[in-house]
Amino acid sequence: MQKVDTKPLSGFIELLPEWQAEFDRIRGEILAMHHAYGFISIDTPLIYRRDLLLAKAGGDTEKQIYELEKGDTKLALRFDQTVPLAIYVANNSSHLAFPFKVSQIGRSYRGERAQRGRQREFYQCDADVIGRGELPVAYDAEIISLFHDIFTKLKFGDFTIRVSNRRLMTGFLESLNLKEEQLQKTISIVDHAEKITGEEFRTQLLANGVDEDLIWKLMDFLRLEGTNEDILRNLTVMNIQNEKWQKGLKELREIVEILADRPNVKLDMMIVRGLDYYTGTVFETMLDAHPKIGSIGSGGRYDNLCDNYSSEKFEGVGASIGLSRMFGALSEIGLIEPSKGKLVDVLVIPVANEQMEAANKLAMGLRAEGKKVSVLYGEARFSKKMEQANRLGAKSVAIIGEHELGNGIYKLKDMETGEEETERLA
Amino acid sequence: MQKVDTKPLSGFIELLPEWQAEFDRIRGEILAMHHAYGFISIDTPLIYRRDLLLAKAGGDTEKQIYELEKGDTKLALRFDQTVPLAIYVANNSSHLAFPFKVSQIGRSYRGERAQRGRQREFYQCDADVIGRGELPVAYDAEIISLFHDIFTKLKFGDFTIRVSNRRLMTGFLESLNLKEEQLQKTISIVDHAEKITGEEFRTQLLANGVDEDLIWKLMDFLRLEGTNEDILRNLTVMNIQNEKWQKGLKELREIVEILADRPNVKLDMMIVRGLDYYTGTVFETMLDAHPKIGSIGSGGRYDNLCDNYSSEKFEGVGASIGLSRMFGALSEIGLIEPSKGKLVDVLVIPVANEQMEAANKLAMGLRAEGKKVSVLYGEARFSKKMEQANRLGAKSVAIIGEHELGNGIYKLKDMETGEEETERLA
Repeated sequence: MQKVDTKPLSGFIELLPEWQAEFDRIRGEILAMHHAYGFISIDTPLIYRRDLLLAKAGGDTEKQIYELEKGDTKLALRFDQTVPLAIYVANNSSHLAFPFKVSQIGRSYRGERAQRGRQREFYQCDADVIGRGELPVAYDAEIISLFHDIFTKLKFGDFTIRVSNRRLMTGFLESLNLKEEQLQKTISIVDHAEKITGEEFRTQLLANGVDEDLIWKLMDFLRLEGTNEDILRNLTVMNIQNEKWQKGLKELREIVEILADRPNVKLDMMIVRGLDYYTGTVFETMLDAHPKIGSIGSGGRYDNLCDNYSSEKFEGVGASIGLSRMFGALSEIGLIEPSKGKLVDVLVIPVANEQMEAANKLAMGLRAEGKKVSVLYGEARFSKKMEQANRLGAKSVAIIGEHELGNGIYKLKDMETGEEETERLA
Repeated sequence: MQKVDTKPLSGFIELLPEWQAEFDRIRGEILAMHHAYGFISIDTPLIYRRDLLLAKAGGDTEKQIYELEKGDTKLALRFDQTVPLAIYVANNSSHLAFPFKVSQIGRSYRGERAQRGRQREFYQCDADVIGRGELPVAYDAEIISLFHDIFTKLKFGDFTIRVSNRRLMTGFLESLNLKEEQLQKTISIVDHAEKITGEEFRTQLLANGVDEDLIWKLMDFLRLEGTNEDILRNLTVMNIQNEKWQKGLKELREIVEILADRPNVKLDMMIVRGLDYYTGTVFETMLDAHPKIGSIGSGGRYDNLCDNYSSEKFEGVGASIGLSRMFGALSEIGLIEPSKGKLVDVLVIPVANEQMEAANKLAMGLRAEGKKVSVLYGEARFSKKMEQANRLGAKSVAIIGEHELGNGIYKLKDMETGEEETERLA
């Protein structure tokens, strides 16, 4: 019985052990793939000076930020891991080797209105490649390849990585002679296009001063279909001459070429990724059977990571898996389940305290073999101990009673099959 | 060049990648040993309602706590992982199996005056065993055994785990007829005894109303020496009759018996561990060659974990390694060094973009063998690429040029020995 209200705050989560084990397994798989691709881990602070964190951020972020009281300096909790990475690179660039391929798996905080699937404390798994100066576009393809391998490994079913290019999109909109402000607004309308009807899409664009005939041109561009080669061919024949379009198209072409052996990487001009710091490649990952969940992993190219923190230029490409959000969404639809593997391999049960020494010795031996081993201590009737063993849920139990100890043996019982074997004590 | 002051806040740390790798390795070893002993992982929130966090805490903690602003509810960052554990157990007890053996490795926050070795953002590695109701003292021995195996594995040199019992100490002081308040104050003086002179020790006790002859009795008790059996024998012949003493002595005797094969577990009556929630067994771990660092891992028995949060009784025993503090202290004296192993196994270098496809394919193959593999993309002179390869510091580089690709081979160069081999491309 509880004395006070101890429930976690809205937007904060306490996972039960068997769910935590699954969460940790998934996190481990993602980290292992980061490392396999040669990304190296850093761990940045959670707390920064408020002005430093918000140097680049817009209004929404400012509203969502958690502020801290401590002395005179205004502090805040990080709301993502990209700003901390920019600060880290600015602080340590002279000690780092570039391209700096970096993995960050950690928590961030956003005090948004807690709605379905939105958590205020959440884990993100970020992979970024930072170049000192220019960074070849092949790294964009590498990050996409990394995400391909991660989601193949995680086995959530068929997925599609939808790829586009912000530079190309901007070049296209410039060719329509949209003004800067209109252009930004149009990108943001396209960003939400899949959540609204065609009618709403048209109304919003008209309100943004985009003419009916331009809307149709835009629609044709966004709906380009076919193989990646088909789409590249169609983009090419559009024969748009401005620099952004040309560069964006070249980048897309290179990425498609590098990723030719990844059939689920698909060009899709609908993808723009809302965040305005993306400048080139953008991509997101969808589960084919669950489009409503939205993207489970996305990212893109940014021109200058350290804008606000260093006068040196650092180009980068990065992408993130919103681990907590994904875990919540896929748990809800049954794609993620609590760990079915037992968390403990062997539970050693000394029947009485006289067998405790032998039990400890057996446990040590089994641990040396790499097993996860618990010993059930305390005096209780044997039936009571077996009840406890059942609740604790180990894969098997090892029983040492007077008879066993006298004969230098123990009984090993598989808790799933019920099979019992006799083994020798070392 | 920096534009603004981006240095981490005082008491916050950014580790360089090769230090981070060593930090993560040590954290991984500790976690693996927790799991080998059958402890299971949970991950509790960092933010709680302020009143919930401080329900049990005293004045110092209250001063050190980081408070958060968000809406009307007063929030705060956790300052340890024990209060979050108590809340977790209160919230989830009906879903947990007891004894609940739980591992928590995470960050906590204390805004104390940042002094040498004190960090405001720090990792702790906690292992706790929680019983629903009574918990056998054998679990106290198990936690000590766990710490023994962790520090053996970490190879920081010879160490001693000093064990005592708060109940025994209290029983002893009661036998001297000290009043409750005097008794608490005396325990706190003993807790600091190793940091002050004998003269100061005497002065403080006299000021606390402890007579000269009692001080000598106390000194004799604290200085008991010899083997664990010697000390137990001496404690027994003191023939003190109160209940606490008798129970404490019985507990110590059982722990010594269980840990008989661990020669570096030593009874030491000087150990009291300041925190007043300890009630029975207390212990700390010292590196024999570096006593000045103080304890690198300590813990003890507490009677009721969930006092303030549940009306059910949960006995527990737990211990913690202050990972960040230990890492800092042992780095300073050279016992911990940046990771000497390279963070990347193979750096694949396509000499020109024509070899990039082959390079990617080779990288995929090597990753499938479990290697950490990076590819160096971009167009640059070969000498420039080798310079970059040197800075990136992989164990070996795999070079594919026109000649190699034409012959279906690549050159594998060991970057330490300089040896070069020719391997076949798959």
